[in-house]
Amino acid sequence: MTNFQITVPEGDATPIPTDAPGVQLHPAPFEAVVALLRRGIERLAAAEEFPRLVIPPVIPRSLVERAGYVKAFPQLLGTVHSFTGTAAEWKDLAPHAVEGGAWDSAQRASDLVLLPAACYPVYAGLAGRELAEPERFAVEGQCFRQEATSETGRLRTFRMVELVTAGTEEHCLAWRATWLEAVAGWLRGMSLKVETEVADDPFFGPTRRLFQAAQRKQELKYELKVPVADGLVQAIASANFHKDHFGEAFGFTSQGAPGNTACTAFGIERIALALLHAHGTRPSEWPEAVIRSIAEGS
Amino acid sequence: MTNFQITVPEGDATPIPTDAPGVQLHPAPFEAVVALLRRGIERLAAAEEFPRLVIPPVIPRSLVERAGYVKAFPQLLGTVHSFTGTAAEWKDLAPHAVEGGAWDSAQRASDLVLLPAACYPVYAGLAGRELAEPERFAVEGQCFRQEATSETGRLRTFRMVELVTAGTEEHCLAWRATWLEAVAGWLRGMSLKVETEVADDPFFGPTRRLFQAAQRKQELKYELKVPVADGLVQAIASANFHKDHFGEAFGFTSQGAPGNTACTAFGIERIALALLHAHGTRPSEWPEAVIRSIAEGS
Repeated sequence: MTNFQITVPEGDATPIPTDAPGVQLHPAPFEAVVALLRRGIERLAAAEEFPRLVIPPVIPRSLVERAGYVKAFPQLLGTVHSFTGTAAEWKDLAPHAVEGGAWDSAQRASDLVLLPAACYPVYAGLAGRELAEPERFAVEGQCFRQEATSETGRLRTFRMVELVTAGTEEHCLAWRATWLEAVAGWLRGMSLKVETEVADDPFFGPTRRLFQAAQRKQELKYELKVPVADGLVQAIASANFHKDHFGEAFGFTSQGAPGNTACTAFGIERIALALLHAHGTRPSEWPEAVIRSIAEGS
Repeated sequence: MTNFQITVPEGDATPIPTDAPGVQLHPAPFEAVVALLRRGIERLAAAEEFPRLVIPPVIPRSLVERAGYVKAFPQLLGTVHSFTGTAAEWKDLAPHAVEGGAWDSAQRASDLVLLPAACYPVYAGLAGRELAEPERFAVEGQCFRQEATSETGRLRTFRMVELVTAGTEEHCLAWRATWLEAVAGWLRGMSLKVETEVADDPFFGPTRRLFQAAQRKQELKYELKVPVADGLVQAIASANFHKDHFGEAFGFTSQGAPGNTACTAFGIERIALALLHAHGTRPSEWPEAVIRSIAEGS
């Protein structure tokens, strides 16, 4: 064990926009808040044993197909395409490879998609197993969603930390209830105004309303909502119960039945934005008690 | 300032492969090495003032067009595509949204590409400026390159930290020489076997050899090469001089002439793999002196 310090550098933590909506650069003071949040979640999770995995921002296409993401959310998925032609084929396109140019006609879909949620590779890793005891994982990844509108916090690329469990229905429901409470308590400890709400996912197509109504009726998704800007309240964390959706999709079982899963998801940029909104854009000037409550996870 | 500890957890740090070549998950002991490397680079950079920016894994397409990346390396670029059709159009594709299904025929190129190198947004940020003094930046981003072959360390998605400067030719050349030396010293301090070589970039098309020969003749690129597996030596860091390429492309000047730029790039996964190869796959068992030399940047 080696001793280091996380310092919160002076200066404005406000993210820097790019020419693309929902895509931003993060200065050092913002990243210090991210480091504190990671630390806090780690502490919060210390009560249970969560093996940790860092997930890359691109994953196999087959994985989101199998998980049902393509079917449910085609409008949000980013697919990775590339040029696989010959040098002779590129010769015709090369003159168009300038700003605003139409050089992309030969781009073809690759074997990869952008990561839509950090937890999918975990379910793939359970494929074919019978879980004698509940499994747990802590994952972090940079996710992508092709949002149609842009506002503060509605990012297309953002970091998500998730605590995930798989096991029986009974285990997953009890686990989710515990975590919903724990996360709300942590966020309130940072002096954020948290409201807990039953929520639904942005399904696509004519069956959208049906799926959303079913999801709400069964209370599968709870969101923790907090102001992230003046007059703008967004979900900064959620606690989800997937029933046996992933157990069926990836073929793992618990007590002989398709495995159930649950997860608690933290939207890292949104929590940071909520903190900037509540305490000001210069984290080095935040009260020591706020810094401590973020990093100590209690 | 708050005190925390970076602990190196017990266990095997070996990355976990996915079904896609060059795309891997990272367990906690690997991430501890990444945290130590970040810390070391931060210390190494403390002699100069480098404002820090974290770059997202997707950036505006216009930026790589303007930087000349599309023209030079079309075979490596990943473009982000999405479905922008209506629910009625999706109805025909939805039945194919299963594993291995052909649901992607209506994917269209978006305004985003995958980040090919962490430094591009910095040059865009200098657009239109006359630099009275040299500018400096420290950037980190998760980069993507559509590599055609796979071997240990030849990842398609990987983290890159870069130290970047912009100013006159004289400044950039002297800065690069200093950093080439400093980084080689840091890597040798970790007991890695480092060789410094003049190198070139994997340009595409019939003019490839010409560009590579010119790049070598002018010694624009130096690579620091280290064994990352048995019989496999790879570049784990580089020191680059771009002449006025980005000054011309983005329209910034120094002393009235197009600005010159230079950068030192650290391939984070490759340095970590070189360390695992040299010291074993369990970082918690590495000698304390190795851990210290990584994290102290000297």
